Amino acid sequence: MCQLLGMNCNVPTDICFSFEGFRKRGGLTDHHADGWGIGFFEGPGCRLFLDWQASSTSPVAELVRNYPIKSTNVIAHIRKATVGQISLANTHPFMRELWGRYWLFAHNGDLKTLPALNHGRYQPVGDTDSEHAFCWLLQQLSQRFAEEPAAEDLHTALRELALQLAQHGSLNFLLSNGEWLAAHCATHLHYLVRQAPFGEAHLIDQDVSVDFKALTTPADRVALIATQPLTDNEHWTALSPGELLIFRDGLPSRL
Amino acid sequence: MCQLLGMNCNVPTDICFSFEGFRKRGGLTDHHADGWGIGFFEGPGCRLFLDWQASSTSPVAELVRNYPIKSTNVIAHIRKATVGQISLANTHPFMRELWGRYWLFAHNGDLKTLPALNHGRYQPVGDTDSEHAFCWLLQQLSQRFAEEPAAEDLHTALRELALQLAQHGSLNFLLSNGEWLAAHCATHLHYLVRQAPFGEAHLIDQDVSVDFKALTTPADRVALIATQPLTDNEHWTALSPGELLIFRDGLPSRL
Repeated sequence: MCQLLGMNCNVPTDICFSFEGFRKRGGLTDHHADGWGIGFFEGPGCRLFLDWQASSTSPVAELVRNYPIKSTNVIAHIRKATVGQISLANTHPFMRELWGRYWLFAHNGDLKTLPALNHGRYQPVGDTDSEHAFCWLLQQLSQRFAEEPAAEDLHTALRELALQLAQHGSLNFLLSNGEWLAAHCATHLHYLVRQAPFGEAHLIDQDVSVDFKALTTPADRVALIATQPLTDNEHWTALSPGELLIFRDGLPSRL
Repeated sequence: MCQLLGMNCNVPTDICFSFEGFRKRGGLTDHHADGWGIGFFEGPGCRLFLDWQASSTSPVAELVRNYPIKSTNVIAHIRKATVGQISLANTHPFMRELWGRYWLFAHNGDLKTLPALNHGRYQPVGDTDSEHAFCWLLQQLSQRFAEEPAAEDLHTALRELALQLAQHGSLNFLLSNGEWLAAHCATHLHYLVRQAPFGEAHLIDQDVSVDFKALTTPADRVALIATQPLTDNEHWTALSPGELLIFRDGLPSRL
């Protein structure tokens, strides 16, 4: 199984601290050494760093650790290959464009069957069930809505599509269009909202602490979503199987 | 105007030497300081590094300079903003998927008018004429061919589409689907094929030489395509206005 990490904030924030713990799980504190990736939205733009090397030793991960990219929506993934070989084409997150926006998707779990992809508007480049599922989701959305609908209609459709897709297998996923971040839980997914009064956080995977009081303003709000909690002195909430949360401006809402 | 750099090879090759000279033009030996990007195909996979900082000082460019990513098709671009603000969404190369392959596109020039984008399958995320042109190209190809056609049919279509698009303005571009790399010249574009017997090359933008004899096998062949020549002791060939070359396995063919 893979590990997911997401961040959604009300002001552009860097993910260096959380990423420092997360990347250790790629080959060091856990055995997910089959590549990794992280995508950052910056306004409508998106940059995606992928590497087929383990995140604990990858030079690209070193850059991401040290270059404080500020973003309101981030999705990261470290891979333990189950379906599809180790290759760049099979590395999450996957990116596509719909309605003039980039979309990022990362998945943890195994789909036992795959829904049919008709019309071929979105086709997988690699051979993972995950990229197939992403292509199916976007294709379904593009067929339902010729243009970008109101957020509530989009989220209702996403809820229906996630229900359908979850019938094919285990479906923990993170999805973002740069405006909001959706988190769907099948087995393991936890979240945390950091906001004033800020305190100190201590990583599980490495003996590193940070005092967010020194780095934040009282109006800042940051939600972190991860397969397993990243810190051992903060309150992480487990999502329930089948639960879909939409994070916007650092706050979750249930669908 | 911007600067383009492309590489097409018969075996995966790193672009570190050429990139070292090229990146200096982003703010140091030339004034293209409004962001830069580079995309590498690795098999069907593609990784794209983008930064809105000048390539001469960007930490991402430092990584690309020092991390020898081996690829058979590379497209890089440094930007002098003419249309569209400085932002990640306006940074080349642009990437989309068609027929289960990633495509990369970078452009140098200004389109005075823009062809209509019907059906909305590909829509620009940023506000450059370049991304619009790329979306139009892919939309046209997807309308002509429901599935990936034979390479010669695809190249014939590309030739027709480039002719149409060039009527809208100045169109120097590099386009690759990971199998081949197309170079279209409107004003400035040069290429070079390095093959046995290999010799020494010396950069124009920095006093750095490399002896390719020590780094290659006799079967290696590498084509480099750049707005302006990168070395001062090799024979670069200028493309003619309106010329479209397809590079495959390090060799150009004229369309």
